[in-house]
Amino acid sequence: MIMGRTIVTKVQKRFGDIDVFGHVNNIHQQEYLDLGKTDYYMQVIGFDLHFDTLSLVIVSVKTDFVGQLLYSDDTFVRTAVAAIGNKSITLSQQIVCRTEDGGEVVRTTSESVVVGFDRTSQQTVAIPREWRERIEAEL
Amino acid sequence: MIMGRTIVTKVQKRFGDIDVFGHVNNIHQQEYLDLGKTDYYMQVIGFDLHFDTLSLVIVSVKTDFVGQLLYSDDTFVRTAVAAIGNKSITLSQQIVCRTEDGGEVVRTTSESVVVGFDRTSQQTVAIPREWRERIEAEL
Amino acid sequence: MIMGRTIVTKVQKRFGDIDVFGHVNNIHQQEYLDLGKTDYYMQVIGFDLHFDTLSLVIVSVKTDFVGQLLYSDDTFVRTAVAAIGNKSITLSQQIVCRTEDGGEVVRTTSESVVVGFDRTSQQTVAIPREWRERIEAEL
Amino acid sequence: MIMGRTIVTKVQKRFGDIDVFGHVNNIHQQEYLDLGKTDYYMQVIGFDLHFDTLSLVIVSVKTDFVGQLLYSDDTFVRTAVAAIGNKSITLSQQIVCRTEDGGEVVRTTSESVVVGFDRTSQQTVAIPREWRERIEAEL
Repeated sequence: MIMGRTIVTKVQKRFGDIDVFGHVNNIHQQEYLDLGKTDYYMQVIGFDLHFDTLSLVIVSVKTDFVGQLLYSDDTFVRTAVAAIGNKSITLSQQIVCRTEDGGEVVRTTSESVVVGFDRTSQQTVAIPREWRERIEAEL
Repeated sequence: MIMGRTIVTKVQKRFGDIDVFGHVNNIHQQEYLDLGKTDYYMQVIGFDLHFDTLSLVIVSVKTDFVGQLLYSDDTFVRTAVAAIGNKSITLSQQIVCRTEDGGEVVRTTSESVVVGFDRTSQQTVAIPREWRERIEAEL
Repeated sequence: MIMGRTIVTKVQKRFGDIDVFGHVNNIHQQEYLDLGKTDYYMQVIGFDLHFDTLSLVIVSVKTDFVGQLLYSDDTFVRTAVAAIGNKSITLSQQIVCRTEDGGEVVRTTSESVVVGFDRTSQQTVAIPREWRERIEAEL
Repeated sequence: MIMGRTIVTKVQKRFGDIDVFGHVNNIHQQEYLDLGKTDYYMQVIGFDLHFDTLSLVIVSVKTDFVGQLLYSDDTFVRTAVAAIGNKSITLSQQIVCRTEDGGEVVRTTSESVVVGFDRTSQQTVAIPREWRERIEAEL
């Protein structure tokens, strides 16, 4: 179950993302998922992961690699929120490729739990009410 | 539950592993876990991930970040096998830091499923009997 | 001196590109420059660095970091050819940021030498005549 | 010309350092060179690149890739200082592989210029006298 908006992030691949197997390495797929998270944070919740004091840090991530991801694949990440707790948010993500006939193939799925974090005090904090409202808003 | 040997891999950190939060980014922790896997494959199973035709590819990984990992932490990865199926192996891993009094603190735990993969045919394959025997051997 | 076309590649930054200093690390700036090279190879010369047998490999790179590059900078890479020898090509590149008033600021300049390379024979080879013609063509 | 000590840093390679060509990518070789720099800073000059206020930042790097670097190569980085100016230090580095008969082969050479940098004021600063003395000391 997904609440509110789904953010779609187009991925620009880099040469080093491809390993000796000729496909995108699992590590760099995790990096693509983080691109999607950063994008979601900025566009939906409205904070910048790089600078803002109040932030979200990853405490758990579960990723399933369904099929190979190639350099030539037209690739993007879908990111949405599946649940909000007092201190944590559960993100649901997919790495998807567009096919030539306009369809889509899911290559990777991932679910991660992030918690509110204050960089000044270095403590976990509750998810602010405004964040909650922005996440739940239907646009 | 763990079967057979546990491989311990000392991690050499790189400057870029540290992010703006001042700790090792989750992506690079996943990379540390892969260092442990590669090491286990070579030392216990006896194949080289980079070149050998018969190999293992990751289909699923679940990682829990228990505590922050700092650049100065004396860090290593523990890797062992938790289960063997017909085509798959479940790996159980930890990122651990040595404390000054000789103790250890677990910072990250991870469980991943890898499957037999033939790079020539690009097909998944059953885990070879010899691999199974080497994994189950108590030393 | 530049011959033929200049290729402009928009850069999508990743969270891990930023180091503890809060700016894009020099290593990832080198990666941005390689994004530009790959793009130039595909758009001007017409080969794919990832798969084609006849390729170009870097033998020398000289990069000057003129100013800090920040995550929020609207960043792109300019790539052009400065010289062609029998076996080598000299690439001239810049990492540039667009300012709010529509201007540009150069943050990094780089010159690199790449040589023709046959991946099957693992030997350096002369730059093919068709590559030379495509590079020299004014559009 | 080299002054004072040469620091030797053993490199732990990672799976993702290897690209589709089957050798260590030029970007990751630059990363190995930075491992050497960080090591030199800590062992000879006595500061930690990750945390200390007074630091060194790279303004220029020139790297020549003499031969291919493979995953299986026993690899280390040599780092020494070639010159000290008022605000800058010139580092001379090599990536070297040990051969089975105990010899060494140089795969990559690099010269870089780093300048004194105060992270609080974000300004370049003169190289402190104590740094100069430690660099010039023969052990």
